[in-house]
Amino acid sequence: MPLPGIEDGRRRAIIERMEPLIDGGRFPIKRTLGESVVVEADLFADGHDLLAGTIQYRREEEPDWRETPLAPLANDRWRGSFSVDRLGRYRFRIAAWVDHFLTWRHDLARRETPEDITVALVIGGALVEAAAQRAGNDDALKLRTWAARLRGDAPLALRRATGLNPELEALMRRYPDRRLENHSEQVGDVVVDRPLARFGAWYEFFPRSCSAPSGHGTLHDCEARLAYVAEMGFDIVYLPPIHPIGQTHRKGRNNSLTAETNDPGSPWAIGSAEGGHKSVHPLLGSLEEFRHFLAAAEARGLEVAIDIAFQCAPDHPYVGEHPEWFLHRPDGSVQYAENPPKKYEDIYPFHFEAEAWEPLWLELKSVIDFWIEQGVTIFRVDNPHTKPFPFWEWLINAVKSEHPEVLFLAEAFSRPKIMYRLAKLGFSQSYTYFTWRNTKWEIEHYMAELTRGRVREFFRPNFWPNTPDILPEYLQYGGRAAFMNRLVLAATLSASYGVYGPAFELLEGRAREPGSEEYLDSEKYQVRDWNLERPDSLREFITRVNRIRRENPALQHDWNLRFHPADNPELLCYSKWSDEPANLLLVVVNLDPHHTQSGWVDLPLDDLGIDSTHPFQAHDLLTGSRHLWHGSHNYVQVDPARSPAHIFRLRRRIRTEHDFEYFF
Amino acid sequence: MPLPGIEDGRRRAIIERMEPLIDGGRFPIKRTLGESVVVEADLFADGHDLLAGTIQYRREEEPDWRETPLAPLANDRWRGSFSVDRLGRYRFRIAAWVDHFLTWRHDLARRETPEDITVALVIGGALVEAAAQRAGNDDALKLRTWAARLRGDAPLALRRATGLNPELEALMRRYPDRRLENHSEQVGDVVVDRPLARFGAWYEFFPRSCSAPSGHGTLHDCEARLAYVAEMGFDIVYLPPIHPIGQTHRKGRNNSLTAETNDPGSPWAIGSAEGGHKSVHPLLGSLEEFRHFLAAAEARGLEVAIDIAFQCAPDHPYVGEHPEWFLHRPDGSVQYAENPPKKYEDIYPFHFEAEAWEPLWLELKSVIDFWIEQGVTIFRVDNPHTKPFPFWEWLINAVKSEHPEVLFLAEAFSRPKIMYRLAKLGFSQSYTYFTWRNTKWEIEHYMAELTRGRVREFFRPNFWPNTPDILPEYLQYGGRAAFMNRLVLAATLSASYGVYGPAFELLEGRAREPGSEEYLDSEKYQVRDWNLERPDSLREFITRVNRIRRENPALQHDWNLRFHPADNPELLCYSKWSDEPANLLLVVVNLDPHHTQSGWVDLPLDDLGIDSTHPFQAHDLLTGSRHLWHGSHNYVQVDPARSPAHIFRLRRRIRTEHDFEYFF
Repeated sequence: MPLPGIEDGRRRAIIERMEPLIDGGRFPIKRTLGESVVVEADLFADGHDLLAGTIQYRREEEPDWRETPLAPLANDRWRGSFSVDRLGRYRFRIAAWVDHFLTWRHDLARRETPEDITVALVIGGALVEAAAQRAGNDDALKLRTWAARLRGDAPLALRRATGLNPELEALMRRYPDRRLENHSEQVGDVVVDRPLARFGAWYEFFPRSCSAPSGHGTLHDCEARLAYVAEMGFDIVYLPPIHPIGQTHRKGRNNSLTAETNDPGSPWAIGSAEGGHKSVHPLLGSLEEFRHFLAAAEARGLEVAIDIAFQCAPDHPYVGEHPEWFLHRPDGSVQYAENPPKKYEDIYPFHFEAEAWEPLWLELKSVIDFWIEQGVTIFRVDNPHTKPFPFWEWLINAVKSEHPEVLFLAEAFSRPKIMYRLAKLGFSQSYTYFTWRNTKWEIEHYMAELTRGRVREFFRPNFWPNTPDILPEYLQYGGRAAFMNRLVLAATLSASYGVYGPAFELLEGRAREPGSEEYLDSEKYQVRDWNLERPDSLREFITRVNRIRRENPALQHDWNLRFHPADNPELLCYSKWSDEPANLLLVVVNLDPHHTQSGWVDLPLDDLGIDSTHPFQAHDLLTGSRHLWHGSHNYVQVDPARSPAHIFRLRRRIRTEHDFEYFF
Repeated sequence: MPLPGIEDGRRRAIIERMEPLIDGGRFPIKRTLGESVVVEADLFADGHDLLAGTIQYRREEEPDWRETPLAPLANDRWRGSFSVDRLGRYRFRIAAWVDHFLTWRHDLARRETPEDITVALVIGGALVEAAAQRAGNDDALKLRTWAARLRGDAPLALRRATGLNPELEALMRRYPDRRLENHSEQVGDVVVDRPLARFGAWYEFFPRSCSAPSGHGTLHDCEARLAYVAEMGFDIVYLPPIHPIGQTHRKGRNNSLTAETNDPGSPWAIGSAEGGHKSVHPLLGSLEEFRHFLAAAEARGLEVAIDIAFQCAPDHPYVGEHPEWFLHRPDGSVQYAENPPKKYEDIYPFHFEAEAWEPLWLELKSVIDFWIEQGVTIFRVDNPHTKPFPFWEWLINAVKSEHPEVLFLAEAFSRPKIMYRLAKLGFSQSYTYFTWRNTKWEIEHYMAELTRGRVREFFRPNFWPNTPDILPEYLQYGGRAAFMNRLVLAATLSASYGVYGPAFELLEGRAREPGSEEYLDSEKYQVRDWNLERPDSLREFITRVNRIRRENPALQHDWNLRFHPADNPELLCYSKWSDEPANLLLVVVNLDPHHTQSGWVDLPLDDLGIDSTHPFQAHDLLTGSRHLWHGSHNYVQVDPARSPAHIFRLRRRIRTEHDFEYFF
């Protein structure tokens, strides 16, 4: 008697609202190696029967689920967790079932009459006997012994106590009757990345400026620059495109329409007769020299990220070889990039609606594959929001299925939903609006969105105070203190951050014109001569901040951020903590780069694990100064001329088992 | 060159977060005839191109989608709506596409050089020509004319103006190029019910008490009771089970374990030698008399709801005929209902984990089908949370696919997630926690959950101040005013409400014992003799409240509820409004049944459409008194001895086009 659509109507356990799931499981959540995935769901069934449930999880390529139990919280919510210890993709779902033994045990404890208890013990004996058959190992014998004791001749009270014995419950929980178990309707996916996807400091520089004033820098010159970057404590060196640059419609200095003979052009105008996306600009060097540069970086403990800008200069070989990948105008010319009235004649976008979209996708993937072969594993992707989302989803998944160590940073300064979509579909990290968030209200609300909201499961922020495209007004007008407090904010609010240097450490704040965020004499269009040894350089300060980041695990995560009240709107106050090892930092930033600001901050001592009956030490890791604080209400004063921020390590009294007290 | 899993990579439109969807579309939302479904989603694409999108919807059995446009709100959110005008099931999804004409038009307005405009007009001409081919009707000629004008010899400015002509845009919007459109990954379902599913007043009574003191009431006696119920303004008469009642382990008065000879037993102990779920209790009458009762109710404008309690007395014919549907204990006896230490020996639950679950499901459906054949279309389902959720989902969907007019009310006073699951899977209405929500905080928060939260899309509340199982303490100790204010709350907070009478209108407040919510001398176990003509009966008051509900469309919906501040915690103040026809009610309830309470209420006059520069009238529909109010801050005083609530109709100044002013 078939009931259409009903597999087995006796499966009574219901699983709802499993989390974390992105769009019902359509997209994966993200983790890094060693992190855990906390899974929750509503589990319930009809009637009074008790349930049991597990998380089932496996690496994508494994055939069998591993399991870890779920435990009830309150209001029919259950929780469990599992750790991810391999790169790649994991899957998880929930299994739940009505557990007749647990129900029987629960009821047995409440039965009152000898008749009821007697019948119940017979039923319980059968349940335990059935478990013995499922066990089929050494435990089977144990279970049969338990069953015999339930059904035996001992006094009723004793047999009842046997039924309630926790050892029996523990054993029975290992052999539940799961014939009628249900599975969550959704399956969740987890992409597991290297820790560098979560925690790292980026340093961007233009290779061609590395030998100024003597001319166009080479990769060999860049190798010499690596020590400078590594000593500041950065983890990743990111280079703008290193490919040949087009001549046709080449832009001149300050984005002028006509280039002078020696103007090098924008590195994002990729491609010339000398090659395209798989070539190195001849003035920078050869492919072999690039590989040498990679090795030199690795020797310094630095990784290299290169720029992926999927667009062509008019001279790019693709334009002639694959006209079908470009949109042609009625006059036969190739459609250049435009956003009327703005025109970018030096850039031809790919025409992703072309009939030949599949060969185009495969060719673009071959670009990534090519650089992976050279040894690159981090790609900063230029303007991903101007190429179709399905393309990126396919590309990133295809690359990461072969190279799970590869990371992609999305340079999309676009609308919120577009930025989040890119993160969902696979980008490992994303540029953010931090670049323009300056006030306390702005920062607190944006950080709540990033670290408390649902987006945190897939959107990993990477905070940049500046980029070659963006010199924020705050830096234009705030002077040295502005650079310092933006650095502290980026480096302590977000586990991943980056600066575009040497413009940053050399306090470059001159815009092309008032109201513009473009740099004057932008390196995008010319070689710049930076004096790295300038006494006002932030090099030392950056070194200190990066060292603090490395030494304090609390700064290596995003979700542990917590803001605290300060009675001065220019003072931003927040803490980050980690458990293992125990580490508690309190950051106070003066958002006003011009004036000393002071005020009282309020700390929730209990939540922070601080004994409110004793003083505790606030040790400023930036200046080395130490303050003895007491209670939740403490005074701070921040002079931007000296140091526009405190990064306090809070050293607390700990009571050990031997009653010995110490600060850590 | 196949790319696995990619249908067509050129489909660039993204559709996210479509709403309303329950669990990603796993369950339907609910509407009643004539209501609209407002659909929202995030729509966006890569780059700068403009999008267009539509809601596609159809009745489940229709092959083709109908369409209605989506319009952008802000932040990439789009909205549209469609109306449902037939019972049954609708489906909806979203279609969206990158619209090259709209993009072209947007860009044309911003182009600056004659060269750019000239090329653009050629491109635009081709776009319009292509639309003409798609149109293939009278509009094709029109479009070709437009295309010719774009490409013609007229001055450039004129041709550009042609391209920007709104008439052309309107015409082009009718023939978009949708070859690369995308559809939402989810499809939403809508169950469309009769308006009675949204708005109706229920009256429950025990048929066997209808002829007291002369003996066991009959269906014939019940017919005489219908006038009384109809005159009070109720819409639905709900009868507890009308089937034969078992003898074995029959419960006596006040739930005593042994019944006296004349004790009638609980109507929920269904089944005896005289029949089961498809039989009428012989003392009530015959099946033919039941059909006569239905007709008599219909003649009074009343619908009849019967009780579905899927459980059996030990004497039920099923027990002998289908032992496979019951759980047998080791001693051979059938397992009775129990929740240790509580035992219900007079009730055998069905064993839904039986091997023979399919025949059982089909038999239970045949019970519903049987009563539908007799003319019943509303079923109040007893304790649905003690039968498997998959069973109800199958049953309700199966019944409603054949009889979309049928309604099911879930009597589940259980945990929140269980109640919501039952509503999701198909129950048309649900009992609620209203029965125990007495304080201002409790009521405001519960109503926010029901009328503002996501549950409102599937959970239709039905508010009961009392039931045969529940005499809340508030009614036990609050006296007449308590009954009155609970009635006003139920009838005005919720479009659907019900009372168990005559216990309610006769102010029955005696509990079996202190601390119990069971009625003393409960009708569940004995015939009661109610004096309907008692002078303190609430009959008149109920009549007035039900008339107010019928005359004021604002009270016929749930989502229009809005609470307003009152500076006295015992005063609950809320408004409901409707647009067509214009109707604005303000309810002020004194939650304290013992003392006069007074205070100031604050109304958001602008939001309520009240001209704050003129007085407005607050007309108490309960007492007939009229107050002239002015401004947002007004004084109220509520004496529970007189009337524990105001139901004000607010009559506002309206300025017409001829500057004539009136109150409505």
